[in-house]
Amino acid sequence: MQPFKWDAERKMRTGIAEAVYCSGKTVSQIEAILVFHLKQKTAVLLTRLTEATWQQIDSALCEIIDYDAASNTAIYQPNKDKNDTLQQGVLIVAAGTSDMALAQEAARTLNFNGFSAPIISDVGVAGLWRLMDNLEEIRQYALVIAVAGMEGALFSVLAGLIHAPVIALPSAVGYGVSADGQAALQSALASCSPGIVTVNIGNGFGAAVAAIKMMNMQENEQEVSKS
Amino acid sequence: MQPFKWDAERKMRTGIAEAVYCSGKTVSQIEAILVFHLKQKTAVLLTRLTEATWQQIDSALCEIIDYDAASNTAIYQPNKDKNDTLQQGVLIVAAGTSDMALAQEAARTLNFNGFSAPIISDVGVAGLWRLMDNLEEIRQYALVIAVAGMEGALFSVLAGLIHAPVIALPSAVGYGVSADGQAALQSALASCSPGIVTVNIGNGFGAAVAAIKMMNMQENEQEVSKS
Amino acid sequence: MQPFKWDAERKMRTGIAEAVYCSGKTVSQIEAILVFHLKQKTAVLLTRLTEATWQQIDSALCEIIDYDAASNTAIYQPNKDKNDTLQQGVLIVAAGTSDMALAQEAARTLNFNGFSAPIISDVGVAGLWRLMDNLEEIRQYALVIAVAGMEGALFSVLAGLIHAPVIALPSAVGYGVSADGQAALQSALASCSPGIVTVNIGNGFGAAVAAIKMMNMQENEQEVSKS
Amino acid sequence: MQPFKWDAERKMRTGIAEAVYCSGKTVSQIEAILVFHLKQKTAVLLTRLTEATWQQIDSALCEIIDYDAASNTAIYQPNKDKNDTLQQGVLIVAAGTSDMALAQEAARTLNFNGFSAPIISDVGVAGLWRLMDNLEEIRQYALVIAVAGMEGALFSVLAGLIHAPVIALPSAVGYGVSADGQAALQSALASCSPGIVTVNIGNGFGAAVAAIKMMNMQENEQEVSKS
Amino acid sequence: MQPFKWDAERKMRTGIAEAVYCSGKTVSQIEAILVFHLKQKTAVLLTRLTEATWQQIDSALCEIIDYDAASNTAIYQPNKDKNDTLQQGVLIVAAGTSDMALAQEAARTLNFNGFSAPIISDVGVAGLWRLMDNLEEIRQYALVIAVAGMEGALFSVLAGLIHAPVIALPSAVGYGVSADGQAALQSALASCSPGIVTVNIGNGFGAAVAAIKMMNMQENEQEVSKS
Amino acid sequence: MQPFKWDAERKMRTGIAEAVYCSGKTVSQIEAILVFHLKQKTAVLLTRLTEATWQQIDSALCEIIDYDAASNTAIYQPNKDKNDTLQQGVLIVAAGTSDMALAQEAARTLNFNGFSAPIISDVGVAGLWRLMDNLEEIRQYALVIAVAGMEGALFSVLAGLIHAPVIALPSAVGYGVSADGQAALQSALASCSPGIVTVNIGNGFGAAVAAIKMMNMQENEQEVSKS
Amino acid sequence: MQPFKWDAERKMRTGIAEAVYCSGKTVSQIEAILVFHLKQKTAVLLTRLTEATWQQIDSALCEIIDYDAASNTAIYQPNKDKNDTLQQGVLIVAAGTSDMALAQEAARTLNFNGFSAPIISDVGVAGLWRLMDNLEEIRQYALVIAVAGMEGALFSVLAGLIHAPVIALPSAVGYGVSADGQAALQSALASCSPGIVTVNIGNGFGAAVAAIKMMNMQENEQEVSKS
Amino acid sequence: MQPFKWDAERKMRTGIAEAVYCSGKTVSQIEAILVFHLKQKTAVLLTRLTEATWQQIDSALCEIIDYDAASNTAIYQPNKDKNDTLQQGVLIVAAGTSDMALAQEAARTLNFNGFSAPIISDVGVAGLWRLMDNLEEIRQYALVIAVAGMEGALFSVLAGLIHAPVIALPSAVGYGVSADGQAALQSALASCSPGIVTVNIGNGFGAAVAAIKMMNMQENEQEVSKS
Repeated sequence: MQPFKWDAERKMRTGIAEAVYCSGKTVSQIEAILVFHLKQKTAVLLTRLTEATWQQIDSALCEIIDYDAASNTAIYQPNKDKNDTLQQGVLIVAAGTSDMALAQEAARTLNFNGFSAPIISDVGVAGLWRLMDNLEEIRQYALVIAVAGMEGALFSVLAGLIHAPVIALPSAVGYGVSADGQAALQSALASCSPGIVTVNIGNGFGAAVAAIKMMNMQENEQEVSKS
Repeated sequence: MQPFKWDAERKMRTGIAEAVYCSGKTVSQIEAILVFHLKQKTAVLLTRLTEATWQQIDSALCEIIDYDAASNTAIYQPNKDKNDTLQQGVLIVAAGTSDMALAQEAARTLNFNGFSAPIISDVGVAGLWRLMDNLEEIRQYALVIAVAGMEGALFSVLAGLIHAPVIALPSAVGYGVSADGQAALQSALASCSPGIVTVNIGNGFGAAVAAIKMMNMQENEQEVSKS
Repeated sequence: MQPFKWDAERKMRTGIAEAVYCSGKTVSQIEAILVFHLKQKTAVLLTRLTEATWQQIDSALCEIIDYDAASNTAIYQPNKDKNDTLQQGVLIVAAGTSDMALAQEAARTLNFNGFSAPIISDVGVAGLWRLMDNLEEIRQYALVIAVAGMEGALFSVLAGLIHAPVIALPSAVGYGVSADGQAALQSALASCSPGIVTVNIGNGFGAAVAAIKMMNMQENEQEVSKS
Repeated sequence: MQPFKWDAERKMRTGIAEAVYCSGKTVSQIEAILVFHLKQKTAVLLTRLTEATWQQIDSALCEIIDYDAASNTAIYQPNKDKNDTLQQGVLIVAAGTSDMALAQEAARTLNFNGFSAPIISDVGVAGLWRLMDNLEEIRQYALVIAVAGMEGALFSVLAGLIHAPVIALPSAVGYGVSADGQAALQSALASCSPGIVTVNIGNGFGAAVAAIKMMNMQENEQEVSKS
Repeated sequence: MQPFKWDAERKMRTGIAEAVYCSGKTVSQIEAILVFHLKQKTAVLLTRLTEATWQQIDSALCEIIDYDAASNTAIYQPNKDKNDTLQQGVLIVAAGTSDMALAQEAARTLNFNGFSAPIISDVGVAGLWRLMDNLEEIRQYALVIAVAGMEGALFSVLAGLIHAPVIALPSAVGYGVSADGQAALQSALASCSPGIVTVNIGNGFGAAVAAIKMMNMQENEQEVSKS
Repeated sequence: MQPFKWDAERKMRTGIAEAVYCSGKTVSQIEAILVFHLKQKTAVLLTRLTEATWQQIDSALCEIIDYDAASNTAIYQPNKDKNDTLQQGVLIVAAGTSDMALAQEAARTLNFNGFSAPIISDVGVAGLWRLMDNLEEIRQYALVIAVAGMEGALFSVLAGLIHAPVIALPSAVGYGVSADGQAALQSALASCSPGIVTVNIGNGFGAAVAAIKMMNMQENEQEVSKS
Repeated sequence: MQPFKWDAERKMRTGIAEAVYCSGKTVSQIEAILVFHLKQKTAVLLTRLTEATWQQIDSALCEIIDYDAASNTAIYQPNKDKNDTLQQGVLIVAAGTSDMALAQEAARTLNFNGFSAPIISDVGVAGLWRLMDNLEEIRQYALVIAVAGMEGALFSVLAGLIHAPVIALPSAVGYGVSADGQAALQSALASCSPGIVTVNIGNGFGAAVAAIKMMNMQENEQEVSKS
Repeated sequence: MQPFKWDAERKMRTGIAEAVYCSGKTVSQIEAILVFHLKQKTAVLLTRLTEATWQQIDSALCEIIDYDAASNTAIYQPNKDKNDTLQQGVLIVAAGTSDMALAQEAARTLNFNGFSAPIISDVGVAGLWRLMDNLEEIRQYALVIAVAGMEGALFSVLAGLIHAPVIALPSAVGYGVSADGQAALQSALASCSPGIVTVNIGNGFGAAVAAIKMMNMQENEQEVSKS
């Protein structure tokens, strides 16, 4: 008996395939899920899969799967053609190098779903010129995911400068009052720059999924004729 | 001397005109801003303008301006042609009748910026069929703003059923642990349904602005050719 | 001298035998309690007994006792007849596989006290059909314990669909704002679906005891003739 | 057009009729709901209806409806026969006289649904004999709702003395660290006496609904034959 | 008998004269303090003196005292010569017009102590050009007090652009997660721009006193010859 | 040069000798303090000295010092005569066996200062008879320190039954909402039984010092003749 | 039927007569309690009785009772002889004039129970000499209740200077982070000066009752002969 | 390609060179930054560099760099002449020996930037004489950084006694309510002694940078002639 219920129709229902949240799952639960997909030859994304857990996974499985320790993600994508082009339009902007793991989680999720995800990093507002020097490039994108910890001032400054919606992705970078990412989250929510939306602290996967849903809006849209 | 700095270029910079946040402003500060726009014949939206404050505003000004007590918003839009059609695509979904004031703030902001904003209300998950009965219609929209207080379960259920991105708009409806809207906000952030983004508790204006930025994404998008 | 006071009459007073909460107890304290029961041949349930502690317990004791690492519980039930039938009526519903340890703690407590405790898992509301597919079965039970972490939306949706009382059992599954289970707890408390009651985060034992007390209500009930 | 969606089938689905939560509703919204029920001659319960709001309701409606200022509830029950007997079995226990408003909200909800709801008050644990003197009587009930504010010690003491399940109903009675009822809520959740379940601070209605669902368990129960 | 202990030597000890914190004081306590200073012809500053309280003060006293309703401060300065020049060097920068009351409290405190306190307002980072346009002027000051509510991003941006120390003065401007000024306070504390120091939310008086102590550093400094 | 300032006169000033709080001190700092006292032959009490740190201390020192791993305390008392009688009057009451480490810290502090400190344990209110059975004995003491975690209901029940002042000593025993001892602390503060005073969570040392100060009150008292 | 249960034996059980906590009680409930005591000619203390409520009490009752608006207390003490001397030994020390209402609540409670309660006020540590000037006098008392709001530094400084136990009574004086008295409470709990015990924020009554219990310790003490 | 953006002009812009915050950076990221500076022969300060991370750094780099395990800082300063004199004027005052690591972080930052940073430790207010004995010396400094954990009363007492501004540096020394440094931080913010400014809990680097900016005020100051 299969120990989990795979939501095979989630993609049909919401536009995004189900991913596997590994935190709290046992090694054998994860292996069963991997085997299920290997047999079916269906692609799967695993998130929050720590290196410690990864090293306990059956090595036969590990060889086939693309694991990235920096972002704690693993990808199995059997039918991917390297010549497939990724859809452009989403940019990830990270305040500091400590935010890169989270930026990577978002980027890997975007890539897995067929979207390009370039990252511009080290543009925290303490050195405003670092942001300004990149502004022209940033303005070329339809949508921006901004990753920041500490006080999260980057969200407000960025949203006041560009047309694109800003998805704030607060990270738990900091200490004292910002140790858990709450200060950055509150800055995203309380911003004086309208047009910022936010996801949970550390939710790189969710930020990417929201971005994909926004990028898919045009396709989904249909004629509506109520006032 | 003009007692405030109007950010006339904000629309050019961010795609959205500046609005006036009236909370904490004196009656004379608000009047000065209104006169400024009346003279220039430029449209302006005022938010968080309570009825108590409104009744102290110079009545000559009040006659010209469209004030809505339910949502605490006022609009002056001198050049609006009633035959202008509003852009379709955004839907507002409200969990209960107590969430209607906030839904209205979002709707008025959307209308002011040229977008239609139909509202479907009373679809809280305690009576799931109320949501299910409206699902076919909800699925026709490109983007959904969902308003909910109490435990905010609507956000997760809705996001698991549709393709459109869901902007969660937590309201301070409730008592005990949900008196201030924190429980609803946390449900939006911690949702098991990926693809939800959220704004601050009670921020109907911000939800609408984020929606507009998302609706404008296609126009803004330009060719980008990095991988 | 016995280093603890066994509440032998608790069952008589409250209908439920005392259990041993092992967190914070030393190995020798736990051993003394086990020896006490082995000598008396009285059944005993130990909760929050981690595997690390278990491995330090005298192996002679370990052989006689039924330890379950998944739920951190140990059971000694000397007079149990395998042909004893368990009382039906309680169902455990778990949102995700990460909630299974907690579901198991509740199930083992129910079993120890003579109640059957089937578990239906992986019915989180992100894929509402998973819940709907099981609804007919769920409705056959007199009482439901629902285990969920993250935003805990399962509690509200479930309670709006069934007659049975729902005991919410919030789990500390999640990260960011839901890292400690508070978001799920608040959803249980603030739910728009009336009829939900809740226990502490991670309190699988308490949820089971509450369920047993409810199942025993009829027996206890006596004629009362006040208005 | 009717401005709200009445969940007429909720009783069928969950065993409890929908009630009207008046907090945040306008006077005209409440009037519309009342008229709807008057026309249909269907019974309705309104909660969190403050006296200030009540006094603005059309007096023609007020005459027909049974309003209780102490508990902020209103009841319209057209087909009620005074000779109908109320079902026995539920007892409400209140720690102090300041908890009586909340006890009344629960009692009125129980009465409206056909259950007797006697109240024993002033049994806070500061004077333990007050509880002990009533213990024999309390033990005659199948189910107890306990209302307490401040530190909520009543919940633990009571649950350690009786067979019946205890539904804790924390009240916002107190000041300093207990001003908002959080201390009492946490005592209910963290209790060392197993078998306590809790509802939100101030949720007399919810406590009563949970009690009714528990009292109805026997009727609902059906044969189940899985292990 | 004098009902309070005036700390006449505080100025000698700390460089700053004692001020009167009126919140929580009765009208007669405030009058007694004013009479004490009028008799002695010693200057005094009163803070947190609301207009409601002010209107209950003996009108004979009111005529002599300079009360400012915007900042809730009152000043009695009998020996002040209008030709006295104020010491230059401190600048107050306010994010929005809603922050002006707090900016005024700081400015009045500085003026009372002999310091000039020009205010540049409406330079929130949502419109970064408003700050940039004033940057050359801001850089001319030795010390800057920055007032901001909401997410307080102004503190970080400003501190990254200038040599002067920045004293953050968080204001309770906002709603939802920033209703009480906590989000702005946390941004000041967690800032990625080093060199920011902060005072309590709403403490315009304290920010000014800290500024004065910093401006007086040179005078106080004495030769020290330890390593 | 001695790396710390010993407050040799603290006993004279406050009646209690200084103790050494070891948390956050390095091994060599602790050794230096021990050597200082060994040389002077002055007694010293060390608190919060974990076993891990203790095992790094110079073994020559360890032999002379009385270390207790359960309570993380060490005592050096060179001139103590085993025939010295301890002063009677203080009792320690502990809710459960998990509270014993904290009870021991208080007991060792009392002993070090010349006071007897008997402990009655396992009297949590879940089994009220355990407390009642000991009530006659408890009533013989002038002063009671009560240790409890979880919901801390013991404090209120005990204080309502005895003449002696109750010093609440909240412990971090529990999980979920009581994981950090906050629920027990709030119960002590919000208790409906007047006459309870509390110390910080986990502060066994402070509870003992407060008890000693209270026991010494009579000696210190002097004639005062103001009204 | 008497609508409340008077705990007539509380004095016998705990040494302190029951008092009436008026917050949350209706005018008629309070009147009934007063009449009960007037008839019996038994003394009674009412706390948290606001002036607004007092003015609604039957004026015939008001004439007989000693109401004090500053402390929101009322006293009926029929058999009090003005020549009775109050027991000496307790001192109340208040940081500022804003703390006087709370100091008065404690003083009135002490007086009602036969204890003198002199108050030394305005000794906050911002002007340390104010405390130092009174130190000799403070040292003459057996027991000190210290009232402070804001950061509550007075508790630590005072406890480091005297032999007497210090009962900290945190007041809700302050704004921003100290608006609700939490900062003062935490200072009492986390103090580096051992020997401080604390009561709830604003609990002047409780501080006084604890003081009385401590003053009565000698009388209660009995011979105990265990080691 | 260089994996980070060095803010080489930060010193020019703000007066302080950029430092490297190592928390959350990988070993190779840190090595790259070190190599970058070694090649350029530019001085660099690294903070929050734990000993565990340090031991993984290429030993060739380690030899050249001055690492201090107590404060988790590393310094590379190639052109430093040992005969350079440090600028006097800043003093660091630490409440206890547990605060020394944080005091060291501030001192090393000051030294790196050319400032002397003597430390006076063990002056917590529990033994007020320890502070008083050092008062004359403390008063000789232009500026004081005060480090304290627990209840942070040192900040208020010190600021009430000296002319110099006090920069509060709260440390996470304590347990229970002060485990995370919040109690000390709140004492700094809520202090009754005006003129205290604060930085984040544990931010020794930031306290030092703020101090340097204040010491540089005179140089930066320019003539301003507005009123």
